Amino acid sequence: MPDVVLKPATTEEVSAILKICNQHKIPVTPRGGGTGLSGGALPHLGGVLLSVERMNRIVHIDERNLQVVTQPGVITEVLQNAVKERGLFYPPDPSSRGTCFIGGNIAENSGGPRAVKYGVVKDYVLNLEVVLPTGEVFWTGANVLKNATGYNLTQLVVGSEGTLGIVTQIVLKLLPHPQQDLLMLVPFTSAEDACAAVSAIFRAGFVPSALEFMERDALVWVMQHVESSVPVADDTQAHLLIEVDGNDPEVLMKEIEGISEVVLQYGAGDILFADDAQQKEQLWKLRRRVGEAVKSHSVYKEEDTVVPRAELPKLLHGVKEIEKKYGFKSVCYGHAGDGNLHVNIIKGDLSDEAWNGSLKQGIREIFALVKSLGGTISGEHGIGLVQKEFMDIMFGPTEMRLMRGIKKLFDPNDILNKGKIFEDL
Amino acid sequence: MPDVVLKPATTEEVSAILKICNQHKIPVTPRGGGTGLSGGALPHLGGVLLSVERMNRIVHIDERNLQVVTQPGVITEVLQNAVKERGLFYPPDPSSRGTCFIGGNIAENSGGPRAVKYGVVKDYVLNLEVVLPTGEVFWTGANVLKNATGYNLTQLVVGSEGTLGIVTQIVLKLLPHPQQDLLMLVPFTSAEDACAAVSAIFRAGFVPSALEFMERDALVWVMQHVESSVPVADDTQAHLLIEVDGNDPEVLMKEIEGISEVVLQYGAGDILFADDAQQKEQLWKLRRRVGEAVKSHSVYKEEDTVVPRAELPKLLHGVKEIEKKYGFKSVCYGHAGDGNLHVNIIKGDLSDEAWNGSLKQGIREIFALVKSLGGTISGEHGIGLVQKEFMDIMFGPTEMRLMRGIKKLFDPNDILNKGKIFEDL
Repeated sequence: MPDVVLKPATTEEVSAILKICNQHKIPVTPRGGGTGLSGGALPHLGGVLLSVERMNRIVHIDERNLQVVTQPGVITEVLQNAVKERGLFYPPDPSSRGTCFIGGNIAENSGGPRAVKYGVVKDYVLNLEVVLPTGEVFWTGANVLKNATGYNLTQLVVGSEGTLGIVTQIVLKLLPHPQQDLLMLVPFTSAEDACAAVSAIFRAGFVPSALEFMERDALVWVMQHVESSVPVADDTQAHLLIEVDGNDPEVLMKEIEGISEVVLQYGAGDILFADDAQQKEQLWKLRRRVGEAVKSHSVYKEEDTVVPRAELPKLLHGVKEIEKKYGFKSVCYGHAGDGNLHVNIIKGDLSDEAWNGSLKQGIREIFALVKSLGGTISGEHGIGLVQKEFMDIMFGPTEMRLMRGIKKLFDPNDILNKGKIFEDL
Repeated sequence: MPDVVLKPATTEEVSAILKICNQHKIPVTPRGGGTGLSGGALPHLGGVLLSVERMNRIVHIDERNLQVVTQPGVITEVLQNAVKERGLFYPPDPSSRGTCFIGGNIAENSGGPRAVKYGVVKDYVLNLEVVLPTGEVFWTGANVLKNATGYNLTQLVVGSEGTLGIVTQIVLKLLPHPQQDLLMLVPFTSAEDACAAVSAIFRAGFVPSALEFMERDALVWVMQHVESSVPVADDTQAHLLIEVDGNDPEVLMKEIEGISEVVLQYGAGDILFADDAQQKEQLWKLRRRVGEAVKSHSVYKEEDTVVPRAELPKLLHGVKEIEKKYGFKSVCYGHAGDGNLHVNIIKGDLSDEAWNGSLKQGIREIFALVKSLGGTISGEHGIGLVQKEFMDIMFGPTEMRLMRGIKKLFDPNDILNKGKIFEDL
């Protein structure tokens, strides 16, 4: 629990709060929708919880320039719907988009299913208004599509998890909204084969607008959780949920046919094509709520692994080997097109001793495997509180010195989201 | 002239050189192909010129993961052709691509015509091997499409103009190569109308793979320069060169028709559709060599302005007003789809006194206009030597303090590309 919750309504109020906290060295935890998966919004040291929930105005949808200016407290889906009404598209869509804030998405450099074709949050952020602990307010860049003017402060703030400054205004790039999409659910009798099909789809020249992977249990649990079901054969071990989008229905049909040919080479079973908007909605609901279903099923830890996509079969195989060794069970799903696999470690029958003890070594082994495959320990959830002890797997003393130096440069008194990302400064 | 030119062949040699120079505080100017337009590769303080020309190996084209690992001294077009042979696409294509190095492109965060659909260099860089002045070698990230693991050191190095470290290996994202493209050259009797058509094309839902603007003189001069011509009507004041790409010829025809309808609403004249590969090549040659033609025509200064694309007409109008006031002449062209207008100020009959004196105030006015339109002073050429005196237009003391702090963190003795970007540290 924090000592106090503050809900500023303006940049000036954020600035005034930070100035005082900086002067008195009071920890400040910035908070968006509180949906983050690495503990970044938790005020674990007390101090001030600075919620941006009142800064919830979409300032300007610039239809001429395909840009939107927004405050950080706007719910991501609200923003997406507002621009969609004008025929415009803001693609990044974390599964929590109905409750998370755009400001939190900036802090975590969020992704979501559409990242595979359209990129993650960082690819849409043009310019940010930021308040430093000194109370100084500045814009990181300009409202332009390309910028070669000094260091890229915008990209330094994106994904910095509220440790460098508080973002009070955001300029995002938009696209014309694609007019059509097609969706299919593809079953496989082998989860590794499903993963192997993923890179083959791209190698065949297709770029789907979503390419999601779900192990059998992930789908079964979420069907129970949301009380909605699709047929799942007894021997199905995993599914790929594949979407293509664009403006021409015939082209999309051809793409779906081409992708179907690829997945059949990897042993795909009977493909379910979503017939209408309602069935698309059902399939997306199942995918989006897997995380929630896992959470309601058991105590769990989620690891946000990401590797080059063709290494997914090796990653999945390795995770299953490690789980045998340490006696835990995992349920895996995620944005396979990006190589981003959420490994959910289920407590189940594991003793508290093993859960709080030896499991940590198992997670280290998973992350070491991820690194050996060219990957990293977080694709879209951030480091926050829960992964900071594993940063040494990815980074040596040089990188850590540079990151710590940047932190000290922006926040010399270490008041902003103190104790996140870094074990110590 | 530098005091010495060094041509290391390995990361280890780069590291050894930097260690010695750092110890003795010898300025080091990293140099790629030497094609940059802001003087970043000029060793104006003497010292060591560190050329990466011997580090010219494409290390690995990873067809499974759609990635390429390369050394910095590879010519951009060589890299593009090598991956194209495998059906893969590295889109960023600065006009100098036949002679510039991929390492220089990283340093400057280069763009080019295709950026309008595919993004700039920063959007393709996944991971960088960097040598610091201390000789320390590290990788900035991981070989993955999404990454939320600590601060984005990759994006901090991209566009840092060789002032933070020397990039010795590069991992780039690739795409499947589009199979088809169509190209058209559209004349307008008003340059401002041509600019106004640009944002209308996007607002109508089209995303061309190139959308280039050329003022009449730019095209006329380059036709003379390369001895190749297309018909230009007497009353034509500007052209748009518009390309669409994809995999389905019928869809591209529909897009070209749709875009034609939009430009006709802005007074377009007779559109020239490129009939075959040869004519496409001719039109692209004309566009790519405009810069060279301007250079051979007169002493000139090139300003790399960029604004939100719908503000292009105001920018062009303003530039012409400012040129009247200061008595110079400009020839404008550039990547209009990105809002990126290269303003070439021609010395022509201007006295040396005005050229070296009052013109500077004119450039300041152009940049102040750019800023007031939401833009910035460099879209893709960087700051280097020639624009550093104008950084104060874009950035206040806070941003400059942060940028200087970052520079000092990476390069405490200020040996790397000393005197670039910053007037002083």
